Amino acid sequence: METPQGFYAGACHCGIRKNQTKNDVALIYSSVPCQVGAVYTKNVVKADPLLLNKETLKNHEAQAVIVNSGNANACALHGMENAIREQKAAAKFLDIAPDQVLVASTGVIGVELPVECIEENLSSLQLGTTIEEAANAIMTTDTTEKIAEATVVLDGKSVRILGICKGSGMIHPNMGTMLAFILTDCAIDHTLLQKALLDNTNQTFNRVSVDGDTSTNDMCLVMANGLAGNPTIVKEDESFVLFQQALKTVMESLAVQIAKDGEGASRLITCRVKEAKEEDQAETLAKAVVSSSLCKAAMFGHDANWGRVLCAMGYSGAEFDPALVDVAFASACGCVKVCAQGKGVPFSEELAAAILSEDEIDIEINLHEGNAECTCWGCDLTYDYVKINGDYRT
Amino acid sequence: METPQGFYAGACHCGIRKNQTKNDVALIYSSVPCQVGAVYTKNVVKADPLLLNKETLKNHEAQAVIVNSGNANACALHGMENAIREQKAAAKFLDIAPDQVLVASTGVIGVELPVECIEENLSSLQLGTTIEEAANAIMTTDTTEKIAEATVVLDGKSVRILGICKGSGMIHPNMGTMLAFILTDCAIDHTLLQKALLDNTNQTFNRVSVDGDTSTNDMCLVMANGLAGNPTIVKEDESFVLFQQALKTVMESLAVQIAKDGEGASRLITCRVKEAKEEDQAETLAKAVVSSSLCKAAMFGHDANWGRVLCAMGYSGAEFDPALVDVAFASACGCVKVCAQGKGVPFSEELAAAILSEDEIDIEINLHEGNAECTCWGCDLTYDYVKINGDYRT
Repeated sequence: METPQGFYAGACHCGIRKNQTKNDVALIYSSVPCQVGAVYTKNVVKADPLLLNKETLKNHEAQAVIVNSGNANACALHGMENAIREQKAAAKFLDIAPDQVLVASTGVIGVELPVECIEENLSSLQLGTTIEEAANAIMTTDTTEKIAEATVVLDGKSVRILGICKGSGMIHPNMGTMLAFILTDCAIDHTLLQKALLDNTNQTFNRVSVDGDTSTNDMCLVMANGLAGNPTIVKEDESFVLFQQALKTVMESLAVQIAKDGEGASRLITCRVKEAKEEDQAETLAKAVVSSSLCKAAMFGHDANWGRVLCAMGYSGAEFDPALVDVAFASACGCVKVCAQGKGVPFSEELAAAILSEDEIDIEINLHEGNAECTCWGCDLTYDYVKINGDYRT
Repeated sequence: METPQGFYAGACHCGIRKNQTKNDVALIYSSVPCQVGAVYTKNVVKADPLLLNKETLKNHEAQAVIVNSGNANACALHGMENAIREQKAAAKFLDIAPDQVLVASTGVIGVELPVECIEENLSSLQLGTTIEEAANAIMTTDTTEKIAEATVVLDGKSVRILGICKGSGMIHPNMGTMLAFILTDCAIDHTLLQKALLDNTNQTFNRVSVDGDTSTNDMCLVMANGLAGNPTIVKEDESFVLFQQALKTVMESLAVQIAKDGEGASRLITCRVKEAKEEDQAETLAKAVVSSSLCKAAMFGHDANWGRVLCAMGYSGAEFDPALVDVAFASACGCVKVCAQGKGVPFSEELAAAILSEDEIDIEINLHEGNAECTCWGCDLTYDYVKINGDYRT
């Protein structure tokens, strides 16, 4: 997929991973400086690349991002020193100032980043105008690249937005998600870019859970280089709304791709809570359902064990009246109502099993309390999740 | 194990479970009325037996508990009606008033309790002075009975405390745990009995997590019939302190037994947070570690992936300084320090793997911030957890 105007991307193998064939460093570059919006993990334990970016982005501007997989560069002895060396290596390769380069890392926590191999091998990287190679190089336990794009016409100019991200474990984002990089040629003021990113983050990435673990490295960056030629967006006008909607399309698609490719996952779970009093209430309830180990295991087993759905809602912390709740399971195969007004209703186990055997399953909850609603995304809990995470380091 | 003076227990098979050989109803009876302390789940969705007990215990007194496994009688169409019928069946069998009988249920949520089979088969139950049969009958996915006892001498009289409980999934107690029944012949005022129970619950059952799911049926009852002949405890004197400590011994033992027998678990995980500023802070941090799916999966894989420990602490919500944290893993096989002042230190992978291959593993965390500490208990996350919960209803 082609990058927006003025953006270039590429990847190479530096030797951080044990796997000697897969690329482990990606580089994204804009021919001109970009306004940059950024959101980071709320985890108290923060990786050094994240702390370095906060410093670098004091003027909200950058021209490149270097990303390595295979090592999170978090809680490591020389973490900040190595993050700075990674930044400098990219700056040298691109012939730009180090403070124009952002750094991101993903992989195991607490192990020293072998930054020398990046310094030595980065020169083998070739920049081009497609994104797939970079999207592949940032993967860890992900099984597929995660890419999304949208185009919007602003004042007669076609503006493109292209994003890549990685999951797929330690995913319960709280501000950003594991790692996401969104490129756009839109001309937009930094404050509005940051607002569009933050609002959308809360409605997309922050509504995904794979395993309830919020990473130390969560980060979502959006880089806008202005080369589309649209009049710079400087207030919350129609252009801003259109841009924000298009950005949301990209971010929601990436969020769903993360949930669907959750570690070991065999199916995507979408939980919609409708007719809530408030969106916050609906979000807390939907997130509790997609985060519940027991709901996730039931989905893995194609088991219409809706009692676990009510149970998860009940301990979520949100107030609601259990006696009003309806629950249904739906998929491409059909829809079956399993609970009405808080009590079990007779249903066809055969139909339920067929519905829950599909790859994408919806849990539909109606609170009958108001007009607000919210959708959250998760995945099932499988043997493979346990397997992948039982020997992640080894 | 013998019951305290005046208590009798027994069990029978009524036909609630598909398994036609295992007992599914237990009955506990005191020859005289008891003061009863009770704590219940904070889940907003509450099972009907729990609601019935709240009503029954308005005068804090009861003489018996009937418990069925195989069906939670929660979110079921005629839940309250069936709980009352179960209560009446026990009262009729024991020839006491229905308001002297408490009811507890555990098993699948949302399915109608086949109360007729209890009404028809309860007469086959035989009461005796041992507890094992009752402890066995309340098990669901538990693999072993959970029993603990303590004796304390108060004013020259020997007072006994005997408790049974069940786990082993949907365990993240918040007030009581799945089901626990504690019998004592101590003479004690109701208010003090309730205080002893509540304080101890917060320090024992509420520090256990198997899967982060707080049940709709959590309940812990303590029944004191006064037959030990000690002067009735009516104030917080030395006798009260001794009784409360003995009760804690029983409750902590039961809590640890639940964690160790968590669904599919292959090992007990004990997380101790030391040198914290406050006990609450230490508890939040320790609970986050034993609740983290990624820490649990690492323990399953004997993988000293301590970065996940710091990560879980970081998103727990508790404040602390990551730069001061030490982490070590310990077991019967030895102890290995893996993190000092928030950074990884070199350690022997062979020793770490040996330590983590034991059945009981300690995660030792030192915050270097103060003098408070807290211990929480959990278990590893295994293939069997997924298997058990993938087809729990079927």
